[in-house]
Amino acid sequence: MKIFIWGMGLIGASLAQALRAKGHEIRGAVRSAQSRDLLLAQGFTAITTDENEALAMLKDCDMLALGLNVGDCYRILDTVLADQALYNRLIVFDMCSTKAELLRYVEANYRTARFIGTHPMAGKEKQGPAAAEASLFENSVVFLTPPQEHNANDLKTVETLWQSTGARTCTIDAAQHDEVMAYVSHGLHLAACVIAELSDKVAAAHLPVSAAAGSYRDMTRVATSSGEMWQGITNSNRENIADWLVSYAERLKSLANEVRAGNADIAGLFSEAQRIRNEIMRT
Amino acid sequence: MKIFIWGMGLIGASLAQALRAKGHEIRGAVRSAQSRDLLLAQGFTAITTDENEALAMLKDCDMLALGLNVGDCYRILDTVLADQALYNRLIVFDMCSTKAELLRYVEANYRTARFIGTHPMAGKEKQGPAAAEASLFENSVVFLTPPQEHNANDLKTVETLWQSTGARTCTIDAAQHDEVMAYVSHGLHLAACVIAELSDKVAAAHLPVSAAAGSYRDMTRVATSSGEMWQGITNSNRENIADWLVSYAERLKSLANEVRAGNADIAGLFSEAQRIRNEIMRT
Repeated sequence: MKIFIWGMGLIGASLAQALRAKGHEIRGAVRSAQSRDLLLAQGFTAITTDENEALAMLKDCDMLALGLNVGDCYRILDTVLADQALYNRLIVFDMCSTKAELLRYVEANYRTARFIGTHPMAGKEKQGPAAAEASLFENSVVFLTPPQEHNANDLKTVETLWQSTGARTCTIDAAQHDEVMAYVSHGLHLAACVIAELSDKVAAAHLPVSAAAGSYRDMTRVATSSGEMWQGITNSNRENIADWLVSYAERLKSLANEVRAGNADIAGLFSEAQRIRNEIMRT
Repeated sequence: MKIFIWGMGLIGASLAQALRAKGHEIRGAVRSAQSRDLLLAQGFTAITTDENEALAMLKDCDMLALGLNVGDCYRILDTVLADQALYNRLIVFDMCSTKAELLRYVEANYRTARFIGTHPMAGKEKQGPAAAEASLFENSVVFLTPPQEHNANDLKTVETLWQSTGARTCTIDAAQHDEVMAYVSHGLHLAACVIAELSDKVAAAHLPVSAAAGSYRDMTRVATSSGEMWQGITNSNRENIADWLVSYAERLKSLANEVRAGNADIAGLFSEAQRIRNEIMRT
């Protein structure tokens, strides 16, 4: 197939490499000349930084993958789907970490477009096309969130495409997806930042050695992610993230009271946490 | 030197291996016959499960290292230091993760004993002597918390001993140590458990795939530690841990309000978190 990837950061460029290895023809659009040059050096030939050129290159493509932050998807969707031929022809999927808001937009404005929401649960701390790998999606999970009205064949095509990269796919309601993500990822990223933020008191003590061992390193690791990207994710999953943060804060506060009173069942807390973690990590 | 290690789990047995490699003579006491047999298989010859035998084996030792949970240190200290000859002869150090409570006990009851508090910041998820490694302390940090009155030579001896295992040492006030630990380790362990606990809602959804990616794995990893050990650590650092939990919960709650209102500066939060994390991890 001829597949156009609009936005080729870590995810978009990794998808490009994975799909090229499967024999697909890849074209793409990026924002910076630097990214374009990096991708040309990776052997891609049809990469543009020009939006009009991108639209021209899209004309005979079969699919459009959006490798953009969710906030940037709206305008590109508007631009591309304004062309009736592209509206009819292209199977479009995004790869954002939040799904419900974008799906509502598509259902409200492009009810009959051939759009499928997708969320590859893959990534690493390094961003951009330089960090891309064809193997990024191997053994990862990709959630598929089709609009209420969708073409079953288009869903199948997108599903098969993702499976060809080595990913396992799971079709799920967009609202449930976003709630689950708040609990296992989105809220956790903000929690990691707050842990780091609070440790300023320790940094200010200027100890001659690092007081931070494995727990600090692991629990703040995701705070090294892109703040710009997480601003977008947070904005587009506000209610679920806020709900999780409130539940988390309330449980921490009641635990604080128990700890202070000396009656916290910490052994029980660990054993319950281990039971649930095993269940989540196993599936 | 002849060094007796009372309690040879992961930390005690690793210390035994590291010190044996430096030519010290190691003796030790463990609770279970299984641990004793494991240590005998590692080539240690003077390992007992009997308390009276342990006291007899201590008679001509130079040092006693306590590899026990903090709650178990008190009784063993009472038992050993009841013997005036041992009281005068032995340099004693513990290896617990909390220091102030034990130091207060020593200062109140054994003011003139040759006691030095120590806390090796090393560990791994696997517990017990089977997981021990001579290299466990290499490049790790060991905090030293001497009592207000102490023998400077004894402090130097303990410091040199720890440095011989490859560790970097740092002498610090016990109260400051415990506060710092609440911020970079103790509070975080409980926070990890609560994150896992809250994810029960996701486990209950029985998705056909795991929704958990790297952030969940990393931020709940320390919830797999020993609940029994963390019960002891929490009990002995109650006020600092409770204070940290309250600060954390309050900041999370205000962040929740900002997120819900759509005015959270998430990009700024990440950049501040990254600045502080770099400072903490660098030292």
